[in-house]
Amino acid sequence: MRVLVKDMSKHVAGEEIELCGWVHRLRELGGLTFIILRDRSGLAQLVMEEKLELGLEYVVTAAGIVESNHKAPGGFELKVKRLNILAAAEKDLPFQINSDPAKTSLDIILDKRVLSLRNPKIRAIFYIQSTIIEAFSSFLRAKDFTEIKTSKLIASGTEGGTGLFELEYFDKKLYLAQSPQFYKQTMVASGMERVFEVAHAYRAEKHDTPRHLNEYVSMDLEMAFIDSELDLIELEKELLAYIFEELRQKQEAGLVLWNAVLPKPESIAKAPIISHDEALEVAVMEAGQGSKKQYEISPETERLVCAWAARETGSELVFINDFPRRQRPFYAYPQSSGSTMSFDAIFRGLEITTGGRRQENYKALLESLPRFGLNAEELSGYLDVFKYGCPPHGGFAIGCERLTQKILGLGNVKEASLFPRDRKRVSP
Amino acid sequence: MRVLVKDMSKHVAGEEIELCGWVHRLRELGGLTFIILRDRSGLAQLVMEEKLELGLEYVVTAAGIVESNHKAPGGFELKVKRLNILAAAEKDLPFQINSDPAKTSLDIILDKRVLSLRNPKIRAIFYIQSTIIEAFSSFLRAKDFTEIKTSKLIASGTEGGTGLFELEYFDKKLYLAQSPQFYKQTMVASGMERVFEVAHAYRAEKHDTPRHLNEYVSMDLEMAFIDSELDLIELEKELLAYIFEELRQKQEAGLVLWNAVLPKPESIAKAPIISHDEALEVAVMEAGQGSKKQYEISPETERLVCAWAARETGSELVFINDFPRRQRPFYAYPQSSGSTMSFDAIFRGLEITTGGRRQENYKALLESLPRFGLNAEELSGYLDVFKYGCPPHGGFAIGCERLTQKILGLGNVKEASLFPRDRKRVSP
Repeated sequence: MRVLVKDMSKHVAGEEIELCGWVHRLRELGGLTFIILRDRSGLAQLVMEEKLELGLEYVVTAAGIVESNHKAPGGFELKVKRLNILAAAEKDLPFQINSDPAKTSLDIILDKRVLSLRNPKIRAIFYIQSTIIEAFSSFLRAKDFTEIKTSKLIASGTEGGTGLFELEYFDKKLYLAQSPQFYKQTMVASGMERVFEVAHAYRAEKHDTPRHLNEYVSMDLEMAFIDSELDLIELEKELLAYIFEELRQKQEAGLVLWNAVLPKPESIAKAPIISHDEALEVAVMEAGQGSKKQYEISPETERLVCAWAARETGSELVFINDFPRRQRPFYAYPQSSGSTMSFDAIFRGLEITTGGRRQENYKALLESLPRFGLNAEELSGYLDVFKYGCPPHGGFAIGCERLTQKILGLGNVKEASLFPRDRKRVSP
Repeated sequence: MRVLVKDMSKHVAGEEIELCGWVHRLRELGGLTFIILRDRSGLAQLVMEEKLELGLEYVVTAAGIVESNHKAPGGFELKVKRLNILAAAEKDLPFQINSDPAKTSLDIILDKRVLSLRNPKIRAIFYIQSTIIEAFSSFLRAKDFTEIKTSKLIASGTEGGTGLFELEYFDKKLYLAQSPQFYKQTMVASGMERVFEVAHAYRAEKHDTPRHLNEYVSMDLEMAFIDSELDLIELEKELLAYIFEELRQKQEAGLVLWNAVLPKPESIAKAPIISHDEALEVAVMEAGQGSKKQYEISPETERLVCAWAARETGSELVFINDFPRRQRPFYAYPQSSGSTMSFDAIFRGLEITTGGRRQENYKALLESLPRFGLNAEELSGYLDVFKYGCPPHGGFAIGCERLTQKILGLGNVKEASLFPRDRKRVSP
């Protein structure tokens, strides 16, 4: 019977069990072979009298008896009776899998994904990401949201045509969707009222920075019958607090490997909300003497505003709302002040969310198009959603890789994507 | 305080509550206005003394007191004190939303998604689909599978280059992934051992049939340390039984709307497994006198085999295994008999799953390439996965829309896709 490494302690000096996994370390000492075996649950020491042709990363099954050994990892080891090689490994490993990944360049880590992920610390990133997605989904399901899957092949971009990847679709040109914006609003208006989607989104942006991916996982939601973006900010606070709590309970081992400290629920609850204009002022103040007036939220602004919030309020999360109309898409809900009911969430110096209430009034949408250089004909598919009764609504999206990156303190968002795509990287 | 229609009964003759939703039906009688209000949870009768300019599909909030009325849907109605119009609807509704969807053509249903989904019966399809995805994911998580998100932009197809959509990616040509096959095998070999993904897959197939979509939701899994495809078939039986049980518990209302009967768990457990060659013989036998010998499993074979299984074993699910090597991709695990450890699952006459054990031996993979007209250089990325120790493994995928279609008895798989893509349809 196969037993996972983490469950060895339940079988001490009992029946024969079988461990399966990869040879993580290997050494011979006093006529014995010591193997550190790695399976999906952890590392275990194996002791064997027999000598076998073995190498690092061989896949084996080992049958034997579990015994206590306070020197072995976890306090137990397997006295091997029979070892069976399931798969051999070439000797030319391109880097040392069983050492600290900080010694390996990001390019090697991404080029050799099948090997770099064998390092428990690197693999932990994606166990954590899996829990983020699970927590996002289960939180929303409990609040009566329905999971949807919407097309990623679209005839045109809702937000103008820039930044789209073009596709040959039989005899037509289509584009990869930048976001499920149009579809999640359709689903709200269809009467589903509350929807979420976790799926890829595509941005044909040329810049190659530690915060950009050309293909990323967008965790989107949209809901009906809200008053303003403040309802959405409240929801996001609860949602993030829940995700952090789930990580605390389910991913302790991985968090320890990365020395990651999660924000406390009470610090999330008191995350400040400041207006776009206040954020710019705070950033100038925080930057100190001689710094110039800022006109737009830049990556630098985000870092400065977070530094200010951490010091003043103890929160690593800040919401910025009241964005000016010219900085938001045409569908952002306008306020009488000239700003919009839209917001960003900045976590540990990085924007992880954009959202807001959307304009649901058909006539107001039509009237607003000219100021954005848009016309009703091009947008007729979108506009139809509002023609037959659409409730007040809004939503937001969380960048899954960015949230993962900031939770673990990764230097580059690409580290939080299994198979990242940037301008140059198209494989594996 | 907003109350959902389904919770009205908890507030009879109590405090004032508010319902929000769409005007589903409207009539005036004896100086009173009767509204059937539709929210995400159901339909409720509203009675109002005031006369307001209202139309079908207007979005309203209605404040009032709940009273019993055995003639009203659900047995309760709201005596309206104040009604507030949140959004108007144009009068030129392209079809009658509040009637039986069988009266509306599929093209209208798909062209006017935002309206057709307002019909509770049509919307129910996607509540059911949402539960299918939730059940698939939670079943696998409980078995220690990790959810992954893998790139859909690939440099070449694992299974040859046919049927791929081509994409402009900066200065390169890329393709939309037909399946996460390569990546899920990579993740098994990376030591994650058990992975699943629910994501879009793309097939550039020109045929337009009631069983094909060019973009569909593939529910994929892959796992290490299996012996043969029989382990996978056992897992799929358990998984499907779990999905059906979850639907029984969570989606009763939608199943009733479609008169859908779910297979019983015990019928799933005893689903027969027959070989490819037996399946062809059974189909000929089932087709009756004068029918010709069959050489390949066709849609007609699938229907005949299911008819046979239903009659002989009471199961609506059949597994076909032992496919000949020439009918499977190069990575299918060969058996000494010349067939492969691969299988299909046929449910109610339609293939919903393809899967099998994969070849994990690097040298055997290399040696098999010429017979499939492949070369090692083209496939070097794929082959690297097996070079450094890959355990025995396999997996399968369930077509989400096809499973939804067959559960509800939908005539066309497009009905089970929110925004389907076929050769002609690219919007909404």
